[in-house]
Amino acid sequence: MSRARTIRIVEVGPRDGLQNEARILPVEARIDLIKALAETGLGTIEAGSFVSPRHVPQLAATAAVLAGLTLPPEVGLPVLVPNGRGFSDALTAGARSIAVFAAASECFSRHNIGRGIDQSLSDYRPIVAEARAKGLRVRGYVSCSLGCPYEGRIAPSKVVDVASRLAGMGCEEVSLADTIGVGTPDVARAMVAAVAQEIGISRIALHFHDTYGQALANVLACLDLGVTTVDSAVSGLGGCPYAPGASGNLATEDLVYMLTGLGIETGVDLRRLAAVGRAICSSLGTRPRSRAGQALSAGMAEEGAHV
Amino acid sequence: MSRARTIRIVEVGPRDGLQNEARILPVEARIDLIKALAETGLGTIEAGSFVSPRHVPQLAATAAVLAGLTLPPEVGLPVLVPNGRGFSDALTAGARSIAVFAAASECFSRHNIGRGIDQSLSDYRPIVAEARAKGLRVRGYVSCSLGCPYEGRIAPSKVVDVASRLAGMGCEEVSLADTIGVGTPDVARAMVAAVAQEIGISRIALHFHDTYGQALANVLACLDLGVTTVDSAVSGLGGCPYAPGASGNLATEDLVYMLTGLGIETGVDLRRLAAVGRAICSSLGTRPRSRAGQALSAGMAEEGAHV
Repeated sequence: MSRARTIRIVEVGPRDGLQNEARILPVEARIDLIKALAETGLGTIEAGSFVSPRHVPQLAATAAVLAGLTLPPEVGLPVLVPNGRGFSDALTAGARSIAVFAAASECFSRHNIGRGIDQSLSDYRPIVAEARAKGLRVRGYVSCSLGCPYEGRIAPSKVVDVASRLAGMGCEEVSLADTIGVGTPDVARAMVAAVAQEIGISRIALHFHDTYGQALANVLACLDLGVTTVDSAVSGLGGCPYAPGASGNLATEDLVYMLTGLGIETGVDLRRLAAVGRAICSSLGTRPRSRAGQALSAGMAEEGAHV
Repeated sequence: MSRARTIRIVEVGPRDGLQNEARILPVEARIDLIKALAETGLGTIEAGSFVSPRHVPQLAATAAVLAGLTLPPEVGLPVLVPNGRGFSDALTAGARSIAVFAAASECFSRHNIGRGIDQSLSDYRPIVAEARAKGLRVRGYVSCSLGCPYEGRIAPSKVVDVASRLAGMGCEEVSLADTIGVGTPDVARAMVAAVAQEIGISRIALHFHDTYGQALANVLACLDLGVTTVDSAVSGLGGCPYAPGASGNLATEDLVYMLTGLGIETGVDLRRLAAVGRAICSSLGTRPRSRAGQALSAGMAEEGAHV
């Protein structure tokens, strides 16, 4: 395969990012963030989650966030749905796109959602079927695709198995998540290649956390498989619950900078995005964590994106 | 070409790192840093610089640093030498390895050292000749290999020209520096490939700054050219004088983590290195800037390096 000429970025900052930040933003600030992200050209923005607000208070009132958004219909606003109740709430809130999540690690699945892999997939099957029947878009996440805090290394065959079952039950897109960011380029590429052989590269999204600083290199290693979709979070929002203080998601600014330099279109305005990153870090009271964002903030010319 | 099975890391933290840090460390702390780095397995550590202490007060008294080091002779301790006077001081201090620096950008050369490229190369020629005659090792840097704060994009042909002349005058190794960290993987690879065609890949070191978060991806892109030497700084020490607050060198921890994951030997003990990174950031009063270092500090298992 060769590289795609355009790559769709799925901005996960307002969900995967915010849910791992210490400070809880008010609904209005979450709405403003999503609007500002859409204005940079991002076409898919994870808008929140219908998990229990007891577990993830940062994403409480996602229904109010959706209600407050008046974006063009072509902007995708997926919301995370953990179970039937969450799905019902998402439907009531008018969600047009949902995401479900399974794990490639049995231990992680039991620790994280209290159910084994098989059970979680069985539970999702009717939800995905109903969502598709109602015309919603459905994405499936595979957590721990490159490593697990409990099991360590994860065999690609396990990822292939879970990804295939998610695709088989109707998930149009499967996002392969390196949840704890332990992967390195060759293993990332081999895992993605194995899944692509089963479900096709165009249905795969890369979701690599930057815990060990490897995320961008891992994305690069996968590009020539023909990857079309990459997840990232503005300013690298998020963190790792298994490593307090560690880095979170791949920063969207750094990703856009690299892809632009490679001649791959993203449709994202990097300067505007860096400004959104500065603003949200200020609201969260955290330091900015995108290197490209910091360099642009520091007043460097944007030469690099064209070098 | 295919990837090298082992890669030599040139640790530049005590020179390129410290010279861009705000806090000035006492000589004793610089000695301790270099000793601690050697104990992690790093075999080449840039120990300082004989530039004017008025210009770079952080590296004043490098002679005292060298005098205080009693490391095995196989540990290389290059020092930067800007001119004949610096070279004479380095010889007096007993340096066995020096580095000279030219730029691929005429404007940068004039701004940075007050001389054009041709003049700077002419000035270095007798220094390099004498150093080699005395049995010293000599490295040549090419600044602005992927971009210049004044000229913007730099044509690979300019880098080839300067690198060839440095090699031709006797520099055993030429370090290709992305001084302002603007490069992206394809352009980095093309530049390195062009220089390698002229002087051979085994004489090239990659020296990529992480200003835009691209350094590790850029290294990855060059590995299959057969790169044998990569520069980096513990905890990503350093910064960018052209972008205050921006990231500095590629962090050695992140580099070691990736190379280990790729099955490439470095001889570096990552856990010990992360501890050195924590200690030096504490001494400098800065936050740690290696992501792998932060993750390891946060108590995550080192699984990743083996994933």
